[in-house]
Parts: sequence; structure tokens; C-alpha cells
Amino acid sequence: MKALEEKILKEGKILGGDVLKVGSFLNQRIDVAFVMQMGEEIARLFEGEKITKIFTIESSGIAIAFAAATKMNVPVVFAKKNKSANVGDDVYTSRVHSFTHGNTYDAVVSKEFLSADDKVLIVDDFLARGNAIHGLIDMVGQSGAELIGAAIAIEKGFQGGGDELREKGLRVESLALIDSMEEGKITFRN
Amino acid sequence: MKALEEKILKEGKILGGDVLKVGSFLNQRIDVAFVMQMGEEIARLFEGEKITKIFTIESSGIAIAFAAATKMNVPVVFAKKNKSANVGDDVYTSRVHSFTHGNTYDAVVSKEFLSADDKVLIVDDFLARGNAIHGLIDMVGQSGAELIGAAIAIEKGFQGGGDELREKGLRVESLALIDSMEEGKITFRN
Repeated sequence: MKALEEKILKEGKILGGDVLKVGSFLNQRIDVAFVMQMGEEIARLFEGEKITKIFTIESSGIAIAFAAATKMNVPVVFAKKNKSANVGDDVYTSRVHSFTHGNTYDAVVSKEFLSADDKVLIVDDFLARGNAIHGLIDMVGQSGAELIGAAIAIEKGFQGGGDELREKGLRVESLALIDSMEEGKITFRN
Repeated sequence: MKALEEKILKEGKILGGDVLKVGSFLNQRIDVAFVMQMGEEIARLFEGEKITKIFTIESSGIAIAFAAATKMNVPVVFAKKNKSANVGDDVYTSRVHSFTHGNTYDAVVSKEFLSADDKVLIVDDFLARGNAIHGLIDMVGQSGAELIGAAIAIEKGFQGGGDELREKGLRVESLALIDSMEEGKITFRN
């Protein structure tokens, strides 16, 4: 999505440790009209797939998931990040390690909100090594729902998580796919 | 908002300790079309107020804030909940105690996303004792922005936080205002 690549070049900030900050339009501050355009593009990419639910994880995935869902007329379900291991029987859960935040948490979602009848599209703001998305895929598997694919705003391709999922046969669509951001220069994959 | 009151009566679940669960449409699972209606009602209530920014807090405030923002054509800014006290100089922060979760956190937002030129509407999913909203008000104050009011999906009026803010002169609009939920029966304020 050309407009997103331009926005990243204009407003994104590269910090140390392969961190790309897009707090000016995608998290912290949300450029609502622009995120709605991203949602529209996700809806276009997965048109005809008969998706019944969008699945994301708190918190920065919620806005783009919501935007895509308004265009696709489906509900959003979001997993919560639970720091304690104290979760009940009525939830699906998956342990996730976050390299960005240097912590580990249980992603948790109530069983009542994902079921074997669902066709699920995972939506998230970032895909790097893919740890969060592996947690979401794990929970979709536990529910018996069919996983149609994953739509990501910004993939950091050089961290390999997206290609690993594609090699396993998952359809992963990233609106912007960054192949490198060395020496402050962002290069997108064609 | 009549439709919200009906939805609460139909889908809300009262748990012990004054907890009302609306996970089927407002958090965990988000009924996107319905949340968009709520956003439209918030936009109608604050029409003509020249609001420049909607301010909320992660995670469950994001969807309704986003919905209101699409109708008002303004960005959303959301505060993060930071468990550590380690925050930099470039942020506004306020300490919040959550009775629901029994913990204390620092609400944090980057200074670059709230400024003295802004006219801010606070939006959140729940208002009970009002601790989270006090944190948001505190940060708006630190930024020098003008606080226009607060729009809440569901206020638990019997916990007093909303009326306390109204007595101080803040405009607080709740789409559903619950006056009691004793013995499993929900009563709305007229």
C-alpha cells in the first residue's frame, strides 16, 4: 500500500534495536481516516473469503482490526495480555514472549468468542519475529476455527517471522513490508 | 441511548463485586456496527464543540474512541498503562489505582500528542469510581489543552465517579447510566 509506505518514510522514526516508531498515526496517536483506508485495503485483499471474525491482540492491533471489521461487517475479537498464569477453564491461552518489551505473557481469549464455525482473519499492526501472531494462531487452532490468513499493517521482513509463516502455507498480507532499515534508511520489498 | 440500555439488559452479565461484563459487544468481542452507532451518538452530543482530539486509555477504550473519532474527523490519542515507574521526560504521566484489577499503574502519553492548542474530549468504555478518568484529566491538565468533556459508554452511577466530576463542572455524557444493579436487576437513570 503505497500511501502507507510514504507515511512510514515521512513520519516513522527508527530507534536502536530495529525499533520503528509509528506512534504518530498507528499507535499512541491514531490517524483515524488513514487507519480506515488501511482497513479498506485489508477488506479488499480478503474479499470473497467469507471471513466471520477478525482476531487481534491488545492494544495497538485494535484500531486497525476495528477499521477492517467495519469494512467487512464482522466482529472483532481481541486477546488480552495476562501477566499472571492464573487463567480459568473457559479461555484459550497461549504463552508469548515479546522481544520488543522483553517480557513473557499469556495471551488469553474467552472460549465463547471463537468457535469451530468461524473463519478467522488475524489482524495486527506489526509483524517482526512473529511471536504474538504465533500465539493468535495457536488460539485459533485450539478453537477449531478455520484460519484464513493474516493481515498486517507493517511487517519487518528482515526479522523473518512473516516469511516463516508463508513457508508454512499461511496467507500473510502486509500493507507495508520493510526489507531493511539499516543506517536509518528504510527499504521496502517490491 | 436506548439501544445500549437494551443491549446491556440482553447481553450484560452481572458478576460479584459490582462487575458488569459486556464482553460480547464492547470488549473482548467488539460488535463493530453497534460501537459505530455509539460513536455517532457521541459525535452528536458534542457537535459544535470544535474538538481537535479524542483522548482515551488502552485497551478497551480504543474501539469506542476510534468510532467517535471517525464521525468527528479527529485523531485518537491513547494513554498506555505502564507498570513500571520508569518513564522519561518526554511524557505526561499520572498514577492510577484500578479497583477492578486491584493494581496501580502509571498512565503515560507522549507530550508530542497533546498540546495547549487542543480541545480534548475524553472517551472511555466504563466510568465507575472514576480513577482512570482522573488520570486522563490530570494529563490533559499537564498539557495545557482545554478539556471539553467526557463521553462514556457505560457509567455505573452508583459508584459515584461521574456525579463527582459533574459537581466539579465537567460535562460528562454517558450513553447508559446505571443507577443500581442490586440482586441481578439493572436500573437505569432517566
